[in-house]
Amino acid sequence: MGVEIERKFLVPEGGSVPDGREFEVRQGYLVLGPEGAEARVRRQGEEYSLTVKRGAGLVRGEWETPLGAEQFADLWPATEHARIDKTRRVVPLGPHEAVVDTYRGRLAGLRTVEVEFTDPEAAAAFTPPPWFGPEVTDRPEFKNQRLAAADAPPLP
Amino acid sequence: MGVEIERKFLVPEGGSVPDGREFEVRQGYLVLGPEGAEARVRRQGEEYSLTVKRGAGLVRGEWETPLGAEQFADLWPATEHARIDKTRRVVPLGPHEAVVDTYRGRLAGLRTVEVEFTDPEAAAAFTPPPWFGPEVTDRPEFKNQRLAAADAPPLP
Repeated sequence: MGVEIERKFLVPEGGSVPDGREFEVRQGYLVLGPEGAEARVRRQGEEYSLTVKRGAGLVRGEWETPLGAEQFADLWPATEHARIDKTRRVVPLGPHEAVVDTYRGRLAGLRTVEVEFTDPEAAAAFTPPPWFGPEVTDRPEFKNQRLAAADAPPLP
Repeated sequence: MGVEIERKFLVPEGGSVPDGREFEVRQGYLVLGPEGAEARVRRQGEEYSLTVKRGAGLVRGEWETPLGAEQFADLWPATEHARIDKTRRVVPLGPHEAVVDTYRGRLAGLRTVEVEFTDPEAAAAFTPPPWFGPEVTDRPEFKNQRLAAADAPPLP
């Protein structure tokens, strides 16, 4: 099991985001469980994966395995109720990486940035750069699984 | 998507079950969601699979894909909270198959039999043979996902 420690912020509309490598991300939720439990499949460029998460807040349990294209095709139809399409840009940020997601479709207008940390101390010590907007780490309406099932982007 | 139409019965303790091919089944639930939604991995002999189900009662949506041994090993630790070990015997039953599960571990003493049908009419027309016990198709305490999280076998 990996443990995921991350903080999530909004990126204000019209704000300028530094350059970074960019790719399309398509993810769909197989099952959304209680207390943030989820199983999802993801296509990122030509890579496919299945991820299971459990727990909420700053620290979550996470298990992942790569999928083949055929396995992804078998499972994708099960996610029809909860899908997300976004463009992901990865921006180097000193020792960290800022992962900027610009959503498409019914979530168009929403842009978030996540930073992952190796331990809670590093997460607490992190100072967001000026292009980051308000923090939403603990706001349930900005969780990926809530976004996947949402009709429209949440209000900032 | 496949649609699963099945009926489930108890097999009384001490009852004699006809012969059939037998193998060990190990399954664990990745996520248990509301209204019977589930994602689970299964090892059956040397075959591994991932299954997603949604919906309750006689008819459920079901999606499945085969897994490799390494993928199974990546995901199995995520199921620690909800696992089932059982011996499965498949007994030919005219045009159908009776799938008899004898549970081990904390569910020892429980034995169930399931029959799958191609349509609701066939399910309704099915007459259980004398070695079948009471039907539990609609009893939530005998659902696989409830059994996986149970401390002990449910009362008949």
